[in-house]
Amino acid sequence: MRIAVDMDGVLANPYAQFIRDHEAEFGERKTMEETIGKAEFEAFPNGHLYCQKAGFFRNLPVIADSQRVLAMLHEQYEVFIVSSATEFPLSLAEKQSWLAEHFSFISWRQLVLCGSKQIVKADIMIDDHFKLLDYFEGQTILFTQPHNQLTESERHKRVFSWSEIESLLVG
Amino acid sequence: MRIAVDMDGVLANPYAQFIRDHEAEFGERKTMEETIGKAEFEAFPNGHLYCQKAGFFRNLPVIADSQRVLAMLHEQYEVFIVSSATEFPLSLAEKQSWLAEHFSFISWRQLVLCGSKQIVKADIMIDDHFKLLDYFEGQTILFTQPHNQLTESERHKRVFSWSEIESLLVG
Repeated sequence: MRIAVDMDGVLANPYAQFIRDHEAEFGERKTMEETIGKAEFEAFPNGHLYCQKAGFFRNLPVIADSQRVLAMLHEQYEVFIVSSATEFPLSLAEKQSWLAEHFSFISWRQLVLCGSKQIVKADIMIDDHFKLLDYFEGQTILFTQPHNQLTESERHKRVFSWSEIESLLVG
Repeated sequence: MRIAVDMDGVLANPYAQFIRDHEAEFGERKTMEETIGKAEFEAFPNGHLYCQKAGFFRNLPVIADSQRVLAMLHEQYEVFIVSSATEFPLSLAEKQSWLAEHFSFISWRQLVLCGSKQIVKADIMIDDHFKLLDYFEGQTILFTQPHNQLTESERHKRVFSWSEIESLLVG
């Protein structure tokens, strides 16, 4: 069984950096609550500019329990890390370095940096974006983030944590 | 119909740079004939080191007719450029820049930089490596390069040029 695991919003948390960069630009400190139900670039109108800055993707915090649970998945499944990255060329090397630092058991052979995930062939996909899960044919797991929190998830299994993924997938 | 097109050995030609870097290191100028039937890193024993040097992938020459024919494929198919890249992290940004320069009609949405191509879902794959075509389920086209020239291609359609790809795929 092959699992495609997203990076941003699933392994890495971009919100703290969006909040910091937004405050630096506009002098307004957004709370996580204010971002609920809003697309990331709606909550942070210049978010796409922050994503183009050197260091943005290199310094994202790791999402709780993802290291521990992904290590277990790695033992039982064929794991690929599949990340939308080519929109922000600087992110390519930064994402690979970030992954090597925080998930050193994942090799370069398991990393896919792409623009569209339509080309991905796997059995299970874990992502925080409906638009990426919606056209995936296998089992889909929606990782809860503020931007997807208010949308009803019918086809996709919604989880709130990596511990929940552990319960679902680790046998 | 979706086509996955390889970069090195199909759009970009690494041989001239391997020959130049090998000569700079060993003082021996290899001819293309000497490399026939040998894996790239067998013909150029330190080739993997040249691949790690800044600029290696950014400056590769474009393979004849690839721009003209790929532009036609781009009109008639869903084209993805799928390149093994994560083994050489420096290559990630260089490959994207190279593609933007020489194939400006290809957007970031169509680029996939990966370690293994097993995860690619497409109908047709054009590649110069047997090992990548062998596990692909769709139609396979082997682009002739010195390293694959002496191996019989049974399952894969061997082509010698982009004009041949044009005859095969452009309707």
